[in-house]
Amino acid sequence: MIEATTQVRVRYAETDMMGVVYNANYAIYFEVARTEMFRKIGMPYAEMERNGVRLPVIDLHCRYYKSAYYDDLLTLTARVKEMPKVKIVFEYEIRNEAGDLLADGYTTLAFMDIAKQRPIKMPEYVERVISKYFD
Amino acid sequence: MIEATTQVRVRYAETDMMGVVYNANYAIYFEVARTEMFRKIGMPYAEMERNGVRLPVIDLHCRYYKSAYYDDLLTLTARVKEMPKVKIVFEYEIRNEAGDLLADGYTTLAFMDIAKQRPIKMPEYVERVISKYFD
Amino acid sequence: MIEATTQVRVRYAETDMMGVVYNANYAIYFEVARTEMFRKIGMPYAEMERNGVRLPVIDLHCRYYKSAYYDDLLTLTARVKEMPKVKIVFEYEIRNEAGDLLADGYTTLAFMDIAKQRPIKMPEYVERVISKYFD
Amino acid sequence: MIEATTQVRVRYAETDMMGVVYNANYAIYFEVARTEMFRKIGMPYAEMERNGVRLPVIDLHCRYYKSAYYDDLLTLTARVKEMPKVKIVFEYEIRNEAGDLLADGYTTLAFMDIAKQRPIKMPEYVERVISKYFD
Repeated sequence: MIEATTQVRVRYAETDMMGVVYNANYAIYFEVARTEMFRKIGMPYAEMERNGVRLPVIDLHCRYYKSAYYDDLLTLTARVKEMPKVKIVFEYEIRNEAGDLLADGYTTLAFMDIAKQRPIKMPEYVERVISKYFD
Repeated sequence: MIEATTQVRVRYAETDMMGVVYNANYAIYFEVARTEMFRKIGMPYAEMERNGVRLPVIDLHCRYYKSAYYDDLLTLTARVKEMPKVKIVFEYEIRNEAGDLLADGYTTLAFMDIAKQRPIKMPEYVERVISKYFD
Repeated sequence: MIEATTQVRVRYAETDMMGVVYNANYAIYFEVARTEMFRKIGMPYAEMERNGVRLPVIDLHCRYYKSAYYDDLLTLTARVKEMPKVKIVFEYEIRNEAGDLLADGYTTLAFMDIAKQRPIKMPEYVERVISKYFD
Repeated sequence: MIEATTQVRVRYAETDMMGVVYNANYAIYFEVARTEMFRKIGMPYAEMERNGVRLPVIDLHCRYYKSAYYDDLLTLTARVKEMPKVKIVFEYEIRNEAGDLLADGYTTLAFMDIAKQRPIKMPEYVERVISKYFD
């Protein structure tokens, strides 16, 4: 398993007139969480794109349990539980400072060759890095 | 069943460096679709909030099949297929001008009393309007 | 002078916990207004980019007079008052259904060659279209 | 003078199809910068709102010099150069890791009584804190 944790401070821009974080913004927190996971394992996502591979989200699920509020310091956890092949599944948890679980969910991402605009299987150099975490 | 359709033009702001609409923005299109469904059945969501009831999203799912591009004119469809009780489930489809299905998904929303900040069952005046579509 | 008007419906996503449209979103409304102006004069911005020219914003100003609220139907006006050369200045007004001026402002955009990533002067085919409005 | 500095990592969501941070998102970075300035002087903005005072943006200006890219670590500086009375003016600078100035600008914010929805002059407890920085 790969797991990484990072923190974000809720921005005013991310709240809505309910006084809480707007539902779509959790998908952005998910993005932040997986970006930091890629960085942690030494394979920054920005570098992967420079190498010609991108990872579009093809499936997104989020369940909302409690609200996140302006200026909350949120802890974002991303996990990859299964060795990916042509797709990679991230699971997420979002918690506030009290440790309450605010939301969880997952995204499925496909590997795509940028030049050919076509799905590919996981590139070898990515597999080499990721496989260290699964055995 | 209740069904309503509306259109949005993709904004530059909604694209990302992949050159397509960023994944989280589909959740905003879902919001636009259900807002127009509420308006169509004569019960604008804004009015519901003025009457003290709001509908937070508690569950969101989206599958992405094809990309949406800047300036695309998208057709958003929202459907409520089952008579709601304490929750209301919306299903969505997003299509481009060629009729291609770009994404589909659903959201589950709870009825909440704004003053008491507590979940409630569907208010009677909402039930009266919605039940006309189910029998 | 070139002038064009379009309408947007305020989305829940665009509000913040003040209960009004968040300040940064007016810059997005400005984008919608100038996009529709380009379309109106028969030169959609999307096409301009396909022809290798883009128009990054290099200067933005917005003054806020009154609030915009969820579900408001806003009227966006964009104006180009002077024949552009290497830059193009758009002025904007945002009004609600009562006709109240909610905000105004301007953006300055530069012409940029996408392939060379360099500023250029206004392309001839753009000049030909725009110059019809100035004499 | 009051000055504070903080950092943000550019999110994929904040980029557009030009491959750079979309212009409106700089206004959100400005918000992050002033939020951290308020925190630094011991007067978190969230607390100010809980005390019944909010600070809507009434004027926004931003000049864009160079692009910010995905995953850039940006340094945001906010400065208040003059003792505020009924309004407070923040100046901002945004720099990348190489120290390049990407953008600068300012926002003017008014003090507003939340309950009365009316502009007020700066509350005394705010003045007491801020005046320490001006003499």
